[in-house]
Amino acid sequence: MTYYGALDVGGTKTICSVADDSYHILIKEQFPTVRSDPEVFFASLSEKLGEQCRKLGITFADLGGIGVTLPGMTDENGILLLAPFLKWRNVDVASIIGKHTGVEHVRCACDVNACALAEYRLGGGTERDFLWITVSTGIGGAFILDGKLLYGVNAVAGEIGHTKVEYHHPARCSCGGLGCAEAHASGTALTREVLFACEKDSELNALFEERGLSKDAAGASVLAGEGNAECLALFDLVGDYLGRAIANAVNLTDVGCVYIGGGMSRSFDLLLPSIRRRLGSDAIEYVRNVKILPTALGYEAALLGAVTLAGLK
Amino acid sequence: MTYYGALDVGGTKTICSVADDSYHILIKEQFPTVRSDPEVFFASLSEKLGEQCRKLGITFADLGGIGVTLPGMTDENGILLLAPFLKWRNVDVASIIGKHTGVEHVRCACDVNACALAEYRLGGGTERDFLWITVSTGIGGAFILDGKLLYGVNAVAGEIGHTKVEYHHPARCSCGGLGCAEAHASGTALTREVLFACEKDSELNALFEERGLSKDAAGASVLAGEGNAECLALFDLVGDYLGRAIANAVNLTDVGCVYIGGGMSRSFDLLLPSIRRRLGSDAIEYVRNVKILPTALGYEAALLGAVTLAGLK
Repeated sequence: MTYYGALDVGGTKTICSVADDSYHILIKEQFPTVRSDPEVFFASLSEKLGEQCRKLGITFADLGGIGVTLPGMTDENGILLLAPFLKWRNVDVASIIGKHTGVEHVRCACDVNACALAEYRLGGGTERDFLWITVSTGIGGAFILDGKLLYGVNAVAGEIGHTKVEYHHPARCSCGGLGCAEAHASGTALTREVLFACEKDSELNALFEERGLSKDAAGASVLAGEGNAECLALFDLVGDYLGRAIANAVNLTDVGCVYIGGGMSRSFDLLLPSIRRRLGSDAIEYVRNVKILPTALGYEAALLGAVTLAGLK
Repeated sequence: MTYYGALDVGGTKTICSVADDSYHILIKEQFPTVRSDPEVFFASLSEKLGEQCRKLGITFADLGGIGVTLPGMTDENGILLLAPFLKWRNVDVASIIGKHTGVEHVRCACDVNACALAEYRLGGGTERDFLWITVSTGIGGAFILDGKLLYGVNAVAGEIGHTKVEYHHPARCSCGGLGCAEAHASGTALTREVLFACEKDSELNALFEERGLSKDAAGASVLAGEGNAECLALFDLVGDYLGRAIANAVNLTDVGCVYIGGGMSRSFDLLLPSIRRRLGSDAIEYVRNVKILPTALGYEAALLGAVTLAGLK
């Protein structure tokens, strides 16, 4: 039997795991990502993977491949060009891991790209042309076109989070820009709106406190789910901004489907009505009925992305 | 020697031509597009092509192929799905022309897509990933990705003209939508701004009249080229809107180059400064230096697109 190593390296946490050849995770462990020398970090990660193999009674030689998702720009050759949060540049992750494990087939990709690949290979859908959007703290995206990941000439294609959705009263984005989708439609943006609403509306503020709910996207989703009008309006606002970004993206690329993943996909049903309304006004007739679906991968999409990379021929 | 038939069918005018195997146009004739039964129209077009062949001393049998550009959505199989202005739907243009000429190889494409293909094959550049934009009465676009035309699942990919660039004071677009790039950055939009400026500013109005210039995009380009501040400001405004659309498109697709064609590309130098300024603020760091170039094809890009189609294997 063939096994696969799957490493999901995030900006703050890393998951190390081994899967079987049906892509089921057999063992996994989470620990903090260390902002040290990447050579040292990936060597220790290889060691952890070796420990997991021993626990399963196998060796590196039983791994058909290792897949690695990375929190930054990664090119088609698997070179991590830039991970801003970790301040890593031009790291040949595959070679480092290959050296420490002896596994030849090591494939790396940016986490969002890997999610899109996983949706394509493991999601169970039949779409060959789609846009994947991770809506979480930030917003990332990736295109699968005719069954292949779109890298772009600088390996940064899919940056829907930095397309503009507001020019008149734009919010400042973490990228330094103004009016980005990420600044208006991410979980962070929703939390900002929740805090602002609680400041303005003492009744709403009291409701969050009485219920012991955090004043953020997650807390607001509880109240919105119960029909609270103020919280519903906040999801409506954020979904509308997300819809602006999606409408522009489908007008440009005419993909058949948009998958939404990331933490905010838990609130998919709260976001969908205003996304669809915005598509109705902003997308051209021939694309406005594009499918909008929550990811079929659940909340470990990036780890499944790593497994997918490991199994790629 | 092999010859090619090239038919550029526009909404109002059609050009019929024959080219040699170096893609040089040997003979061409322009006449109005007839909004009749498409079967009748394409039969008469085949007849005109036959006359041109006779003038060159050749026959249909000497044509290696016929390329046809069409003013509407055309799928990968060359079926004209919809030409709104002509009210034609689901016309198998290739079969009609094939039947009347006996030429087997007849290839059809939407005019904007054909322009992008011509830029790729005949433009002399080396870009394999680019966005083509026709800025004329309206705005159309097409992507070449990894050397191939992006059709999209409904054959309408590339509709940059209907991505939104203004949400606060949006102008109404011919598509019925609000705030489309076409409504703010096309030749029509610039002409609207020129008329509005002349209404507000009697000195400017007098200047247009003294000089005998038309109060439109073409007239304004003459004055802007001479340094007239009001007209320069209008090109700056329109270029800024075009830049908004381009920034979103390159953030999404990370193409290496954007080619601008259509009548407004005559004013490329007047538009470029504000396009670049907008890319500086709205495009992410890794894509903001994307090349922006005027088409190398001149003003017969669509006809050259038809020739390119004819020669496609």
